[in-house]
Amino acid sequence: MKVLTINSGSSSVKYQMIDTHTQQSLCRGLVERIGISGTCMSHTRADGHKTKISNNITNHQTAIEAILKILVDPEHGILSDLGEIEAVGHRLVHAGEKFKESVLIDNEVRDKLYECIEYAPLHNPPNIKGIEAAMENLPNTPNVGVFDTTFHNAMPDYAFMYGIPYKYYKQQGIRRYGFHGSSHLYVSRRAAEIVGKDYRDLKIITCHLGNGSSIAAIKGGISVDTSMGFTPLEGVIMGTRCGDIDPGLIFAIAARENFTLDEASSFFNKQCGLQGISGLTSDMREIEAAAAAGNYQAQLALNVFCYRIKKYIASYIGVLNGADIVVFTGGIGENSYTVRSQSTKDMDQLGIELDEAKNCEIRSTESTISSEKSRIRVMVIPTNEELVIAMETERIVGQHRGR
Amino acid sequence: MKVLTINSGSSSVKYQMIDTHTQQSLCRGLVERIGISGTCMSHTRADGHKTKISNNITNHQTAIEAILKILVDPEHGILSDLGEIEAVGHRLVHAGEKFKESVLIDNEVRDKLYECIEYAPLHNPPNIKGIEAAMENLPNTPNVGVFDTTFHNAMPDYAFMYGIPYKYYKQQGIRRYGFHGSSHLYVSRRAAEIVGKDYRDLKIITCHLGNGSSIAAIKGGISVDTSMGFTPLEGVIMGTRCGDIDPGLIFAIAARENFTLDEASSFFNKQCGLQGISGLTSDMREIEAAAAAGNYQAQLALNVFCYRIKKYIASYIGVLNGADIVVFTGGIGENSYTVRSQSTKDMDQLGIELDEAKNCEIRSTESTISSEKSRIRVMVIPTNEELVIAMETERIVGQHRGR
Repeated sequence: MKVLTINSGSSSVKYQMIDTHTQQSLCRGLVERIGISGTCMSHTRADGHKTKISNNITNHQTAIEAILKILVDPEHGILSDLGEIEAVGHRLVHAGEKFKESVLIDNEVRDKLYECIEYAPLHNPPNIKGIEAAMENLPNTPNVGVFDTTFHNAMPDYAFMYGIPYKYYKQQGIRRYGFHGSSHLYVSRRAAEIVGKDYRDLKIITCHLGNGSSIAAIKGGISVDTSMGFTPLEGVIMGTRCGDIDPGLIFAIAARENFTLDEASSFFNKQCGLQGISGLTSDMREIEAAAAAGNYQAQLALNVFCYRIKKYIASYIGVLNGADIVVFTGGIGENSYTVRSQSTKDMDQLGIELDEAKNCEIRSTESTISSEKSRIRVMVIPTNEELVIAMETERIVGQHRGR
Repeated sequence: MKVLTINSGSSSVKYQMIDTHTQQSLCRGLVERIGISGTCMSHTRADGHKTKISNNITNHQTAIEAILKILVDPEHGILSDLGEIEAVGHRLVHAGEKFKESVLIDNEVRDKLYECIEYAPLHNPPNIKGIEAAMENLPNTPNVGVFDTTFHNAMPDYAFMYGIPYKYYKQQGIRRYGFHGSSHLYVSRRAAEIVGKDYRDLKIITCHLGNGSSIAAIKGGISVDTSMGFTPLEGVIMGTRCGDIDPGLIFAIAARENFTLDEASSFFNKQCGLQGISGLTSDMREIEAAAAAGNYQAQLALNVFCYRIKKYIASYIGVLNGADIVVFTGGIGENSYTVRSQSTKDMDQLGIELDEAKNCEIRSTESTISSEKSRIRVMVIPTNEELVIAMETERIVGQHRGR
């Protein structure tokens, strides 16, 4: 099945055409700076043909139109007709407890998605915009929503429950959900394939480190704990998100700054994390460069980031009672040997020892970076959320056709 | 030196007379339900003589008066004259960055303590009331403040820094401070004594579990990380405090409940934790009893509590790159074999294995509860914060006399 995957963010849309039969990507692209001056669209075919287009894309509707247009473009495209798109798979961030699984999207489902906005106010609205634009432009093509939360659904209650009155869970679904599910699923299954073992026999810790970061503890293919929570604000520190923090500190800062609740939420989501500590940037490449040049706050941001990752890895070794594999993925996890090195340093007593020479060589290629002596195998695996979304989309569409 | 130690809480005052020369307690007692109907004072001498007095104690001032009165009581007391009290040592919860060390209290210092109230709004005000009552009743006796935060002062910056703009640390001292310092100090040093090793050569994880709970990672006698943070709200879940939580959840609940910031702070401090999950009680003994009787929410509260402790222990094994000793202390840590068992269960791959038969026998006595095979020694050590306070008080008074 030819599936168009859509990952629709606040000012960007990522897309891929995937042939689920071959599991290969036919093309991929990105529309950036939607609604901001200087919108830019990049499009790359599997044969290596690349093109960049600057055009005036003011909203998600026109972004989807531009994507569909280039897919059938005689020079840059890969399709002769939009009818070849058999389904559209959307990455959706948060399902609350409304959706435990991937879902075929009709108008009723779309309305329910609106009810999930409060769970991820930064992510859900642009996700829905992407769906609506696809439904409008491809009215006869099935749309499937694949949730970031689904992979973490089977977590035990003692891992997903917060220390708050039980009624908030029971009546309002306030619990740990976790995110980046497609990524944690993909790299953990791929790690099992690479080492030639059944994923059901393995204990794997997956570190998805990007602008948003989360870590998961996976036992026998089930995510049993993960660092993001009810929202994507919890866990390791991120580009602009604070990550784990003393709840009391929120009240103290809000009181000092005279913040409303909305202002406080915006502050801890958008002005904190690496950006906040470094005072420079939310981009890890720039943090590393500034740290290397001797900037104290950049070095501190890098150190805090890696230290928090190390604490999560160790914590999940406890949760799993040992681990077979630790995987690094995501923009930072795949590319930064510094982060990989520093967040696993001095952990030989827990069974982790990197081959530093090997680690330094690896950027975004499947590889083992632990030493021969390391009891726990440490791997780099480029993530492929789009493949998970495409395969899920095919499965859900097939289910409905089979009815 | 004969030191009266005062631990003044919101509705209670604990006290001891300690002879720092022998390191023995001469008597100890507790005034409970101050300002609430049914005030009760219990007083126990080292010779075993006990008494209980019900009287009308309406505030901290009258509580201290009642304590001083019983200390010189011909029948129940241990002193012939209040002049025998050579110094008063106060347990103070939070010093911010204003006090890095124990301090001799004069009027100027007392005024500075008022400035620390915002750091621990539940704890600092009654602490200060205790000081003022002691200063008034014993005007010629030196008063020393011993802070819960001091032992954690040497934590590295990457462990105490939050993922927030750096200026909040630099200008306003917002960082992880940690609490229960006297307890973590006492049990870690005592553990080293018991195993006959220099504490400077040991890696120790101390679990102080009571109505407030915190865990510390101690390397060579230095606390290098701890679970409580800027305030005592962070970390493992507690009697009524939420502990670690998704910051995004605070905004969600406050919005649903239409809470002001103060109301939200009060909610997460006073209505959450074991109380919130169980819907029954904040008392671990009652939680265990209800769980044993088949109450699901009580069992869940117990499970979440133990699971979070396990995650901290494992995380700190990572921070320390292995551990020599894990210590349980505090009301729950000393008495609940269920909590000790469940929070260290299935951790043999990390080097922890309890001797369950031994564990079940131990209540508040110094003991090793790990098995022969366990690489990490697990111990129960009753805490003695008062002894640390008395020894510190003698040291600080001595310093000032020596000037």
